[in-house]
Amino acid sequence: MTQLEAAKQGRITEQMAYVAEQEGLEPETVRELVAAGRVVIPANPNHTTLTRFTAIGEGMRVKVNANLGTSYDYVNPEEEVEKARVAIEAGADTVMDLSTGGDLAAIRARILEVATVPLGTVPIYEAEFKAAARKNFFDMSADELFETIEAHGRAGVDYITVHAGVTLATLERYRNAERVTGIVSRGGGLMAAWMLQNAQENPLYARFDDLLEIARTYDMTLSLGDGLRPGSLADSTDRPQIQELLIIGELVERARQAGVQAMVEGPGHIPLNEIQTNVQIQKKLTNHAPFYILGMLPIDTGAGFDHIVGAIGGAVAGWYGADMLCYLTPAEHLGLPTPEHVREGVIAFKLAAHIADVARGRRPDLERNRRMSEARYRLDWETQFQLALYPEAARRIYEARGTKTKACSMCGPYCPMNLVEAVLRGQRSQGLVELEVRPG
Amino acid sequence: MTQLEAAKQGRITEQMAYVAEQEGLEPETVRELVAAGRVVIPANPNHTTLTRFTAIGEGMRVKVNANLGTSYDYVNPEEEVEKARVAIEAGADTVMDLSTGGDLAAIRARILEVATVPLGTVPIYEAEFKAAARKNFFDMSADELFETIEAHGRAGVDYITVHAGVTLATLERYRNAERVTGIVSRGGGLMAAWMLQNAQENPLYARFDDLLEIARTYDMTLSLGDGLRPGSLADSTDRPQIQELLIIGELVERARQAGVQAMVEGPGHIPLNEIQTNVQIQKKLTNHAPFYILGMLPIDTGAGFDHIVGAIGGAVAGWYGADMLCYLTPAEHLGLPTPEHVREGVIAFKLAAHIADVARGRRPDLERNRRMSEARYRLDWETQFQLALYPEAARRIYEARGTKTKACSMCGPYCPMNLVEAVLRGQRSQGLVELEVRPG
Repeated sequence: MTQLEAAKQGRITEQMAYVAEQEGLEPETVRELVAAGRVVIPANPNHTTLTRFTAIGEGMRVKVNANLGTSYDYVNPEEEVEKARVAIEAGADTVMDLSTGGDLAAIRARILEVATVPLGTVPIYEAEFKAAARKNFFDMSADELFETIEAHGRAGVDYITVHAGVTLATLERYRNAERVTGIVSRGGGLMAAWMLQNAQENPLYARFDDLLEIARTYDMTLSLGDGLRPGSLADSTDRPQIQELLIIGELVERARQAGVQAMVEGPGHIPLNEIQTNVQIQKKLTNHAPFYILGMLPIDTGAGFDHIVGAIGGAVAGWYGADMLCYLTPAEHLGLPTPEHVREGVIAFKLAAHIADVARGRRPDLERNRRMSEARYRLDWETQFQLALYPEAARRIYEARGTKTKACSMCGPYCPMNLVEAVLRGQRSQGLVELEVRPG
Repeated sequence: MTQLEAAKQGRITEQMAYVAEQEGLEPETVRELVAAGRVVIPANPNHTTLTRFTAIGEGMRVKVNANLGTSYDYVNPEEEVEKARVAIEAGADTVMDLSTGGDLAAIRARILEVATVPLGTVPIYEAEFKAAARKNFFDMSADELFETIEAHGRAGVDYITVHAGVTLATLERYRNAERVTGIVSRGGGLMAAWMLQNAQENPLYARFDDLLEIARTYDMTLSLGDGLRPGSLADSTDRPQIQELLIIGELVERARQAGVQAMVEGPGHIPLNEIQTNVQIQKKLTNHAPFYILGMLPIDTGAGFDHIVGAIGGAVAGWYGADMLCYLTPAEHLGLPTPEHVREGVIAFKLAAHIADVARGRRPDLERNRRMSEARYRLDWETQFQLALYPEAARRIYEARGTKTKACSMCGPYCPMNLVEAVLRGQRSQGLVELEVRPG
C-alpha cells in the first residue's frame, strides 16, 4: 500500500508519524495533506537503508535535494558514494543518482547503501544507454523503458523523474517557439529526440497507466519532470514550458486517483521578478502538487558561483511556496561537481531553505533565530555555534581570528551591544577597555 | 561647488557625464536625478586617485560597497590596503575604511592611495578614540567631532556615515522598546553611549547646519547612518528603527536645500517577507533618497556563510529598489575578515546586484544574459567565459574538470541542447557519440 492509499484510508503510517515529529505537526495533519496529494513522502519499502523520512509539500519545511552521479567523462563510483555522504552530512533532505557513465545499476546499489535519505533517479538514462550499447539510443523500446523503471523500483529507488509531459503537443509548442537555449533537460532532451526521430508519442504519456502500476507497486513517487524548462532567462515562462505544465497537471490528477504519490518539477532559469508567477501557476495548474524546483536561477552569467545564484532564486521561490529546491553547485554549467562542490551547493541551498521557512513564519525557525540572537547579545559563543546552521564553519572563522576580548575581532571592546547597555545600566566606565566586560 | 549644486544650476559635470556613459543613460537624465537628490555621485575633489565615479540611486545599476579596516585585535595596514585592492578588483563600486585600530589617519591615507572608487568613512571612530586616548571617550567634545569630520574632508573622503538620526527622541523610542539585540551599529552605539552618559543631544543633529557646511565645502556625501538598525530578526522593522528613519527623512530635505548630497543607510536583519516594506517606507519617508543597505540579512543563523545569506536579502532588496548593497563576508558576526573573505563577499554581492538589475529589467543586463545563453547553446566556451561575471573562476572549474567532448564533463555527449537540435535538423545519427559534434 502506498503512503497515499494509506492516507486516503485514514491510516497514519510510520513515515507520517516520523515526519510529523520532524515538522512539529500533528500526525493527522500530515495524513490529511498526503491524502490530498499536497504532500508526498517518498519511501520505497525496498529501500532498507532509508531511515530519515522526508515530507515534501504544503506546510512542510522547504527541502533540499543534491544531485550526484557519474558522467561520460568521470566514472568513479567511490567518489559518488563520497558525494552522497558529504551531501547528507551537510543536510541534503534527498539525493538523486543521475549517473550516466559506468555500470549504472551497480553505482545505484552503492549509493543506496549509504542513502539514509530518499533516493531519486532518472530511469530513461539507463534505458537509453542499454539501447545505445545494442544499436543506438533511438532503438529503445517502450517495454525496455518500463522494465528499467521496474528495476529501479525493485532496487529501492524512492522517486523517479519521468518526463511524461514531453508530449507531441508539447513539442509542437516547442517547434513554434523561438528559444535561445532549446531543451536543456537531459532526460527531457533524450525523450524528445527519441520521439522526434521515431515519430512516436512519449510512451510515458501514452502508457501512463502502466507507469502508475509500477509506481504503485513500489510506492515510487513520480517526480513529473520539466523537460521543457527554460535554460536561459530569454526562454523563461514561455509557451512550451506552460504547455508541458498543463499536461503535467492532468497527470498529477491521474496519479492521485491511482493512489500514486506525485510531485512536479519546475524551472530553471527564471528572473527574480517572475518567480512568484512560476510558483503560483504551478500550484494552480497542478491542484497544489508539491513543487520541486531546479534553482531557480535568476541570472545566466554566474558560472562558477551558480550555487549562490541558485540559492537566491531558491530562497525567493521557497518563500512563495516551492517545496523542494534542487541544489546547484559552483560547477553548474561547467562540469561534473567534486565532493567539495557538492558540500558548497548543499550549504548554500540549506541556507536558502531556512530563509524561506523564516519568511513563511514557521515558528520553530523563528524561535531558533531568536535564541541565536539572544546568545549573540550575551556574547555567548558556544550557544551561537550550537545554533548556527553550520557550527564548525562558524567556529573555524571565529577561532582563526582570535581576539583579546570577549567580543569578536571585528569590534573588540567597541562592541556596540556592550557600549549602550553599559551606560544604560549606570555603569560609569572610565575608558573603553573596561567596557569590554559585559555587566551583569 | 557640489555635484548637487551644479545639477541644480543645470550644469553637467565631468562626473555626471562619466556615470551617464557607464549607466547607458543620457547625461541630462543623470543631472535631473542628481538635482532631485534621488541620485548621489560621491566625489570629493581632494580624492585625487578617484577615477571610477559611481552614481548611487534611482535608475542606476545597483552598487556594492566593501568594508575594510583594522580592528582593536588586528592592526595591519598592509593587509587593509590589500583588501582594498582585492575588493576593487572583484568589482566593489565603493569601499569604506572602518579602521578602529592603529594610526587611523595614516591608514586612511594609505587606502586613499589605492582607492580608484569612492571612499567612505565613519569619522566618529577617530573623534572618540582621540578623546579616549586623552581621558575617556565620553570626553569627546562636539568641536572635536566636527574637526575630525573636516579632516576627513580635507583628506579626500568621498562620503561619511553620520548617525545624525540617533537623537534623544530616537533613544526614547529605544528605551521603550524590548529589543533582543539592542544597538548593533558601532558608530551609532558610540554616539548613543556618549549622549546617554553626557545627557546631551547628538551634536550631529543639534548642529546639523555645521555638518552641512563642512560637507558642502568638500562635496562629501552624507550617508545618514542607521544607528538603530535591527541586529536580529526579532528586532526587525520596529519603532526605534522607524523613528530614526523619520528624523533622517527630515535631515535629507535639509541637506538637499543646502546643496549637500545625502543618502540613507538601512537595515540590517530583516526577514525576506519584510524587505519590500523596508525599501518602500525608506523611499517614501526620505523623499526617494538613495538607499544604502547592510545586507539585508534574512536569517540570524548563517554565521560562516553570511555573505550568501546577505546576498539573498540584497538581491531581493535591490529588486525592490535599494540602490547600494553593503557586502557581508563569511566572517560577519565572527571576526575581522581576511582578504579572501573580502573577495568572497564582493563576489556574492555583485551577483546579487546583477540579479536585481535583471529583475528590474535593465536592458544592458538582459542583453548580456542573452548573449551568454546564446554562447552556451553554441558550446562556445571562450565567449561564455568572457560574458560570465567572473571569467577566471568559471574557466578554472571547466578546465580542472576536463572533457573528451565539446560539451562539458557534466553531460558530455548527452548534452541535451545538442540532442534535440540534431534530430530536428534531420541529422540521423547512428549512435550517441556522433551527436557530440554540433551540426552546422
